[in-house]
Amino acid sequence: MQTPASPTSFAVPSGFRFGAVAAGIKYRDRLDLAMAEAPAGAAAAVLFTTNRVKAAPLLVGARNFKKSRGTLRALIVNSGNANCATGKRGMRDCADTCARAAKLLACGEHQVLPSSTGVIGVALPAGRIMAALPQLVASLSSSSAGAHDFARAIMTTDTRPKMAGACSGRGANSVTLLGVAKGAGMIHPQMATMLAYIFTDIAARPERLNTLLAEACSESFNCISVDGDTSTNDTLALLASGASGVLLKGPAEREFRRALKDVCSSLAQQIVGDGEGIQHVVRLRIERSRSEREARRVAACIATSLLVKTAWAGADPNWGRILAAIGRSGIEADAAKIDIWFGAQQVCRRGEACSFDEKTAHRYMSQPVYEIRVSLGAGRASAWLLTNDLTAEYVRINADYRS
Amino acid sequence: MQTPASPTSFAVPSGFRFGAVAAGIKYRDRLDLAMAEAPAGAAAAVLFTTNRVKAAPLLVGARNFKKSRGTLRALIVNSGNANCATGKRGMRDCADTCARAAKLLACGEHQVLPSSTGVIGVALPAGRIMAALPQLVASLSSSSAGAHDFARAIMTTDTRPKMAGACSGRGANSVTLLGVAKGAGMIHPQMATMLAYIFTDIAARPERLNTLLAEACSESFNCISVDGDTSTNDTLALLASGASGVLLKGPAEREFRRALKDVCSSLAQQIVGDGEGIQHVVRLRIERSRSEREARRVAACIATSLLVKTAWAGADPNWGRILAAIGRSGIEADAAKIDIWFGAQQVCRRGEACSFDEKTAHRYMSQPVYEIRVSLGAGRASAWLLTNDLTAEYVRINADYRS
Repeated sequence: MQTPASPTSFAVPSGFRFGAVAAGIKYRDRLDLAMAEAPAGAAAAVLFTTNRVKAAPLLVGARNFKKSRGTLRALIVNSGNANCATGKRGMRDCADTCARAAKLLACGEHQVLPSSTGVIGVALPAGRIMAALPQLVASLSSSSAGAHDFARAIMTTDTRPKMAGACSGRGANSVTLLGVAKGAGMIHPQMATMLAYIFTDIAARPERLNTLLAEACSESFNCISVDGDTSTNDTLALLASGASGVLLKGPAEREFRRALKDVCSSLAQQIVGDGEGIQHVVRLRIERSRSEREARRVAACIATSLLVKTAWAGADPNWGRILAAIGRSGIEADAAKIDIWFGAQQVCRRGEACSFDEKTAHRYMSQPVYEIRVSLGAGRASAWLLTNDLTAEYVRINADYRS
Repeated sequence: MQTPASPTSFAVPSGFRFGAVAAGIKYRDRLDLAMAEAPAGAAAAVLFTTNRVKAAPLLVGARNFKKSRGTLRALIVNSGNANCATGKRGMRDCADTCARAAKLLACGEHQVLPSSTGVIGVALPAGRIMAALPQLVASLSSSSAGAHDFARAIMTTDTRPKMAGACSGRGANSVTLLGVAKGAGMIHPQMATMLAYIFTDIAARPERLNTLLAEACSESFNCISVDGDTSTNDTLALLASGASGVLLKGPAEREFRRALKDVCSSLAQQIVGDGEGIQHVVRLRIERSRSEREARRVAACIATSLLVKTAWAGADPNWGRILAAIGRSGIEADAAKIDIWFGAQQVCRRGEACSFDEKTAHRYMSQPVYEIRVSLGAGRASAWLLTNDLTAEYVRINADYRS
């Protein structure tokens, strides 16, 4: 939940340009079409949603990316429309957009990776996007302001842009990373992020980037849950321009891996911290589980329980609801071995109430960010999940999405 | 969602007496302790929650019921406290209550089946219950008013008592059934009801009652979902006094089975119709699935999606969220074969938007009860689930439960 630093504080990795325009896709006079470009190309890795229903840009993007053999020239992203469940027309609209962008950038169309986010089942206003493309390409710049515009243009119900920066190495060996993401609904493990892009100037092969990205994702974007829904449009991409001249190997690789995880973790935290309507971010830690898989399952069951999430909204230390969620999670839990802590204060010992100060617990749960720890007393594995409360404001936002 | 008939219209099966008192368990001056008694005993079948965390009355009840060899004398039910996660003291409190009730009724303590519903993790005020027991036994009567008091006393966040009556057979072969239940949170298949009791004067063996009860449950209480949470206290019991002299066999059995299903279905519908904060009951029907199991899984995934349920609260025909929920349900769905209807109006054909009148759809979804039908285009199996919308009022109720 740390507040992102001001836009000018994020260094743009060399070898990238960013831009955005207001194409009028859904709203007037707001940035809604964004581009990131690597003028000399970039090695890339991409992860898509695990939802069986995939939006047109993911189908076109996966096909393009395969043909590109892991080398991209540009990302093109629109908000305001998911271009999902739009059939052949949606596929054609998406492919046409990539082809037109490629022509303007003088590259192959399979080197353009498309993303869309917004409402499902409404035809993409492709004409407006096509008309805005020349202006979009003209807006490209290597400034921090350009990257900030990119971050703003991909927002939907987000209340603020999500960016994270990191450096690895020193002097001639220094490498820059810049991450940009959007939330704020349909967020649940199984590639939880809606859209996230990480740009870096390290030099690397696509296969290696893919391994590192999957690793960083499993410890960041796959450890967050806002509302238990998985998007049809989730895309996570890592682009490496190579412009720093630093090769991804030896000590540089170790440092880069850490920096990549930091950037992914920061973006994931920002997504949860800006979850729709939220008041509290809860770091759930499940300990002494028989396996990490079971620990993750218990965490997901707690984090998607409406009764648990609404109690959090009221800062109500109603740990019985957490116990009930563990009980229905499907693991072989022994209630008599379960301990629960709200911060430093234990509230349940061996499956029973233990005396604790309710007022202190209420105060603890009134904080914007806090931790709940559960011990299953069954083994040595553990897992954590970053999640949040469920408020009446969440319902208001989503009962009124399209009006 | 049919309004239950007025209390006096439900005939009480012969061989049962009902009563209730205000024991001051949580609130003052409301009925919160209820008893149903079969003076000559009743053959019985009981189903408990599948939650691994089970409240003391379920543990004591299962032990008692085993000893009773399927013959019960009384049910004792309190609201305002779940007696769950209350450890050895909770077990002792529950057993003491049963023993004291048994003494007053002059029967064995294992012939008393206890139930509790309310907050988890708070010690049961057993003293108040013990003190109220003589008055409770004195209140027993075979009148409809007594049964109505029983129904009111077991309510928690329910806004109205839930009762259903049915008759089977004619003349000398007529049998009476009376069902009583409570909702209204922690309702999800896996024995979805919180508490439900069905009383009848048919004569039957416990084993046969068990088979019929499991069958009726799978088509009623296991086909409803309010909030996706499964309670620690779910109990469903069927008690047969035999006072009608009609034996459960031949044509009488066929008629009784149908009547039992009707009573269970009515109670299940009443539970969903009185779900916490709800505005709309949605009958979800999943068709052309490869198996009933997959159809049930898809239905559960749709019915627990926050984005779907909040769209329903806004009467927003946002079918894209339903499509996305199907996509993440874990079945091998082919998006290009999915059709969706809101009532008679098709909104999605082969995974794509089809032109439909939004205003008509909005009006249709503004009704208190309506149907959504999904065809997966994959096989011949089907399933249905009765569920409801998620409103800001639900959040308000549950963010404020204990204050």
